[in-house]
Amino acid sequence: MPKSETGAFQLIPHHCGISVPDLEASIAWYRDMLGFSVEKRLTLDVVPARIAFLKHGDFFIELFQIEDAAPLPEERRHPDRDICTHGTKHIAFAVEDVPKFVDALKKRGVDMAMDVNIMENKAMAFIRDNAGNLIEIVEAGSP
Amino acid sequence: MPKSETGAFQLIPHHCGISVPDLEASIAWYRDMLGFSVEKRLTLDVVPARIAFLKHGDFFIELFQIEDAAPLPEERRHPDRDICTHGTKHIAFAVEDVPKFVDALKKRGVDMAMDVNIMENKAMAFIRDNAGNLIEIVEAGSP
Repeated sequence: MPKSETGAFQLIPHHCGISVPDLEASIAWYRDMLGFSVEKRLTLDVVPARIAFLKHGDFFIELFQIEDAAPLPEERRHPDRDICTHGTKHIAFAVEDVPKFVDALKKRGVDMAMDVNIMENKAMAFIRDNAGNLIEIVEAGSP
Repeated sequence: MPKSETGAFQLIPHHCGISVPDLEASIAWYRDMLGFSVEKRLTLDVVPARIAFLKHGDFFIELFQIEDAAPLPEERRHPDRDICTHGTKHIAFAVEDVPKFVDALKKRGVDMAMDVNIMENKAMAFIRDNAGNLIEIVEAGSP
């Protein structure tokens, strides 16, 4: 692995890129459900794409909206089917109390993809964003 | 957004799930290129899948290997084409010095998807893991 002069290097999770059909609708969902706020908007001329970086804590979601993009493949809406196609699948966030957090999201009408259950002695769940993208909610620390 | 009794809630990036064709080859790549080490192995009977959680700092990569999974769609190997299909696209990591970090990876034979360039006054690049999955390398802080 690459090393700095002092030894091990830092590799900090910075953002997750998600392509969506409706930038403004997704901005609203990530704000209302997960507390993200718009940090920056830009356009990518080469595609072209409209981009919004949303921030929560030190992490960002990068949303892309591209005209005539292909729709989300149906299997990507389901955790067990999504992983049956190779590729980058989902981002997972840790929260202090998974059942309490998911309950609060349910009261706001979140689309559940997998209700809270216990895996390896830890609570986890899958939600879908407004465009059907899977997001995992887990307990902090080692899986 | 859900609030704890004390106000805003923490949402900590925990892991990114990636489905790969060869678990051991991917474990080796993430170890040799990005300094991840195996934290836990498990099997998911329902799919069935072999899973490895790899750790670097406080963040994990969750690798899935599933027999007869569909291959990575070709467009997912290219940053500008990948975002033309809706869905969760790539994870991005921040490093202290993007050009230096990428140079070190190149010396180890990394597959570059987009060489270091400047976007919004910050250095960024895209690499591919051994299975072709895009990973973005960026500077820390606001995009």
